[in-house]
Amino acid sequence: MNDDVQFRSDMGVELVRAAAQDSDVIWAARVSTAGEKSIEALNSDPQGSKSLIKWLCANRHGSPFEHNSMTFMVTAPIFVFREFHRHRIGFSYNEESGRYRQLKPVFYVPGPERRLIQVGKPGRYEFVEGTPEQFDITVEATKRACREAYASYQEMLDAGIAREVARGVLPVATYSTMYATCNARSLMSFLSLRTKDDNSRFPSYPQREIEMVAEQLEAYFADLMPITHEAFVEAGRVSP
Amino acid sequence: MNDDVQFRSDMGVELVRAAAQDSDVIWAARVSTAGEKSIEALNSDPQGSKSLIKWLCANRHGSPFEHNSMTFMVTAPIFVFREFHRHRIGFSYNEESGRYRQLKPVFYVPGPERRLIQVGKPGRYEFVEGTPEQFDITVEATKRACREAYASYQEMLDAGIAREVARGVLPVATYSTMYATCNARSLMSFLSLRTKDDNSRFPSYPQREIEMVAEQLEAYFADLMPITHEAFVEAGRVSP
Amino acid sequence: MNDDVQFRSDMGVELVRAAAQDSDVIWAARVSTAGEKSIEALNSDPQGSKSLIKWLCANRHGSPFEHNSMTFMVTAPIFVFREFHRHRIGFSYNEESGRYRQLKPVFYVPGPERRLIQVGKPGRYEFVEGTPEQFDITVEATKRACREAYASYQEMLDAGIAREVARGVLPVATYSTMYATCNARSLMSFLSLRTKDDNSRFPSYPQREIEMVAEQLEAYFADLMPITHEAFVEAGRVSP
Amino acid sequence: MNDDVQFRSDMGVELVRAAAQDSDVIWAARVSTAGEKSIEALNSDPQGSKSLIKWLCANRHGSPFEHNSMTFMVTAPIFVFREFHRHRIGFSYNEESGRYRQLKPVFYVPGPERRLIQVGKPGRYEFVEGTPEQFDITVEATKRACREAYASYQEMLDAGIAREVARGVLPVATYSTMYATCNARSLMSFLSLRTKDDNSRFPSYPQREIEMVAEQLEAYFADLMPITHEAFVEAGRVSP
Repeated sequence: MNDDVQFRSDMGVELVRAAAQDSDVIWAARVSTAGEKSIEALNSDPQGSKSLIKWLCANRHGSPFEHNSMTFMVTAPIFVFREFHRHRIGFSYNEESGRYRQLKPVFYVPGPERRLIQVGKPGRYEFVEGTPEQFDITVEATKRACREAYASYQEMLDAGIAREVARGVLPVATYSTMYATCNARSLMSFLSLRTKDDNSRFPSYPQREIEMVAEQLEAYFADLMPITHEAFVEAGRVSP
Repeated sequence: MNDDVQFRSDMGVELVRAAAQDSDVIWAARVSTAGEKSIEALNSDPQGSKSLIKWLCANRHGSPFEHNSMTFMVTAPIFVFREFHRHRIGFSYNEESGRYRQLKPVFYVPGPERRLIQVGKPGRYEFVEGTPEQFDITVEATKRACREAYASYQEMLDAGIAREVARGVLPVATYSTMYATCNARSLMSFLSLRTKDDNSRFPSYPQREIEMVAEQLEAYFADLMPITHEAFVEAGRVSP
Repeated sequence: MNDDVQFRSDMGVELVRAAAQDSDVIWAARVSTAGEKSIEALNSDPQGSKSLIKWLCANRHGSPFEHNSMTFMVTAPIFVFREFHRHRIGFSYNEESGRYRQLKPVFYVPGPERRLIQVGKPGRYEFVEGTPEQFDITVEATKRACREAYASYQEMLDAGIAREVARGVLPVATYSTMYATCNARSLMSFLSLRTKDDNSRFPSYPQREIEMVAEQLEAYFADLMPITHEAFVEAGRVSP
Repeated sequence: MNDDVQFRSDMGVELVRAAAQDSDVIWAARVSTAGEKSIEALNSDPQGSKSLIKWLCANRHGSPFEHNSMTFMVTAPIFVFREFHRHRIGFSYNEESGRYRQLKPVFYVPGPERRLIQVGKPGRYEFVEGTPEQFDITVEATKRACREAYASYQEMLDAGIAREVARGVLPVATYSTMYATCNARSLMSFLSLRTKDDNSRFPSYPQREIEMVAEQLEAYFADLMPITHEAFVEAGRVSP
C-alpha cells in the first residue's frame, strides 16, 4: 500500500489568464451599425450598453459574445473531464498525460454533502441524501479500490512496464489537470448545461461533480463580465 | 468476486451507416468551375476524376472531402475514448452512459503482441517487447485490479448508491461503446495522427490501442472511398 | 449591353444526397442506456421512439441529432450566401468560384410579393408593401445596375483581365451555386434563425431572401425526418 | 453621380486586443508532463522553451497554440470577406451590416502594382503585369461600374426602399468592416492558405487582395509571438 495516496472531495479551478470584459461585447455588436467607428463611442452611453448586452443575450445574437478569451486551470477527476471534453466548440484543451508522466495518487471520494441516492427517471434524476451507512460504504469502497488500483499501477511501473499500459487500472476517480480556454458564448453554453438552477428556461440535470467545476467557472465569469453574466441569468440561463 | 468479469484485448469497430463514395468528392470540387452542372458530367471522365482527387488531396483543398458521412460503432476502453474525444471538428459522438446504466464488467488487458516497454523521448516513444515475466505481471496486475474495482462498484450498487457515484472506482480499462460520425476529411485527420506509418510525411506516435481502432476505421474508409484513400496514402498520410 | 442577362426572383434548393431518417436519432440516443444493443430494438416501440425524439428536442439533448447527413445544392444571390456562410458549425461548403470561371449574368430582382419597406427598430424590423411606384423603381434601378455591371465585367474580360479582378464590379445580387452539407442539428439551428414564425420561442427577423432558401430546406427536412421536424416545431423552433 | 465616392487600393488591418505571447504555448504544452506545476517553471529555461515551440510546430502538436487570443479590425472589399469567412474553425466574426446601416461609397480598385493578367491552370494560377492600357481599362471600368451602382443604391434609398433590398446592386468591391478573433493555431492555418511563399511546404495560390490582409495579420502575429512565428516559418508555413 502506498502511504502517499490522497483523497479529495473538491474541484480545483483557477483563472490563468483572461481578456474578457463586458465592453468587448459592445464594440463587437456595434460594428453592425457603426462600422469602423464602433470602438470610439464605447464609453459614451453606459446605460445603452447594458441594455444592448441584455437584448443580445435574450434574442440569441451570440456572435458578439465570442470576441473574448478566458483560460482556466481545472483539476478534477477523470470522469468529470470525460463530460467536459464533450464540449467541442469554442473550447481548447491541454491536459496532463498518462503517457508522458506517472500519474499522482490523488483520487476523488464524495464528501458528506454529496447526495448519493438517485430517484426519478433517466435524464431528470433527482438526488437525495443516503444514510450514514451508505455514506460509509461509499467512502470505504472507493478508498479501498483506489488504493488497490494504485498499488497495481505502481507494481507494473516498478516492473518496467510503460506508463500508458500500466495506467489502464487507474480509476476514473483519479484527478487530472488541464488548461481549458473558452469565450463567453461557449462558457455560457457549458454553464447552461452543467448547472442546475430553478430559474433555467431549460432545466438541466448535470452530475454534481461537474456542476462543482461549473460553479467556480461561473464565479470567475461573473467577476470578469458582470453585465453579461446578469444578462445570461435574466435570459433564463440560455446561451445566446 | 464477480464470475462474469470478462477481459478482451481487441477493439470493436463496425460501420453502421455510410453515405460516402469517391464521386462525392468530384461533384463537390467541380462546382468551383462547373456550377450547377457539376453533377451531370460525373461519370464522363474516370481518369480525370482520379487525378482530381489526388491533386486536391496533395494540395490541401480539403473542403470537397467533407460532403459525405460515415457512422461507426466503436467499442473500446475508456482510455481510448479519452483520446478519441479530443477530435472536436467534424466528429459527432454519442456514448453509453455510466449515469444511466450499470456498466458491464468488461475490461482491456494487453494481448501477447502488445509491446510493453517504452524507450526514447516524450513525443517520439518507441515500444519494444518485454520479457514473459513482464507480460505476466501486466496481465495479473490488470486483472486483479479490474476484478477488485468491479467488486467495489457492485458493492456500492447493492447498497443503493447511485451509478454515477459508484462508477468512480471503475478503471479506464473498462470498455465503453459509442457511435461516432465523421466525414472523409475529419477521418483522414484522425488517421494521420492516430496511426504510425513509415510513409507518413509527419510521423505520429499514437498509443497502440487507439491505433488498433484507427486501423479498422481505415479499412472501412479504404473500402468505401478507395481513390480518396489511395490519394491520402500517396500524399504522405496528411489530411488535406 | 449583354442580351443574355437574366433576372430571377426565386431561390434554387435541391436535395443532392441524404442519409437522414428519424431512426438515426433513436439509435444514437439509446446507446446511452443500451450500449451495443441500441440498434437491435430499433423498430420494437414506435410510440416510444416518437416520444423519445420529442423529449430530446425539448430538453436540449442535441448530439443524437448529429448522426445523419443532408447535402443540398443551393442557387441564390451572393448576399444570401454571405449570411449562409456565417453558419460555421456542422456545415460544409463548396461554391462556384469567380476566380476559376466566368460568372453567368444571372441576377436577383425582388418579385412582386417581396415587401420593400422597412419599419421598426434594428434587430426587429417589420416589412410592409410599397407602392407600385416603389416597386417599379426597385426593379428598374436593380436591372439597370446589374446590366451595367455585367457590361463592365465583360469589357474587362474581353481586354484580357483576370476573372478574379474583373468580378469586383459584379453586384451582390449575382447568383452563385454551392453544395452545403449539414446534419439535423445544424440545420435546425439554421432554420431557427433564418425563418420567422409566430410560434418561435425566440423570434427571428431574417432577411426574406435567405428565409426563402430556409423554407425549401425545411420542406426537405420535414420530408426526410418528419418526427424530428415535428419535435422541432413543437419545441418552439429551438435547435436542441 | 455621388461626389463622395471613394476608391482605395489598400486593406485595413488593426490589432484591437491581444492576449497572445509565446509563453502561452509553453505552459499549455508542459501540462502534459508537469501537470499543475506547468506555469511555475515558465521562465527557467528560455532555450528549452524555444526548442519546445519549434518541436511542437514541426510535429503537428497543434492544441498548445490555441490558448491565446487576437482580435483584429479588418477593412476590406466584400470579395475578400467572402473568402475570409470560409475559415470556420477558431474564428469569430462580427461585421458591419447592410441591413442595419447605409453602406458607405468606398470601393476597391486595383493599384498599379496589382498584376492583372492570369496565366496557368486553375488552382495554380500565376499573375503577370498587364499593359498600361489594360490597367487603364480596369480602373475606368471599375470606377464607372461602382459609381453607377452606388447611384442606383442611393436612388432606391431616396425612394424609401429598405437598405437590405437596395444593397443588392452594390458590387463585391464595396468595402466592409469586421472584427475577427482567432488564436495562433487558426491564424497559422489562415496564413498557410492565404499567403504565397516560396518556402511553403504546400504551395498556396491565394488571391492577391486577401494575401494583402494576410500579410498585415502576419506582421502583428510575428510581433506578438515571435518564436511561434519563427517556428511556423521554419516548419514550411504549415499550421500544426
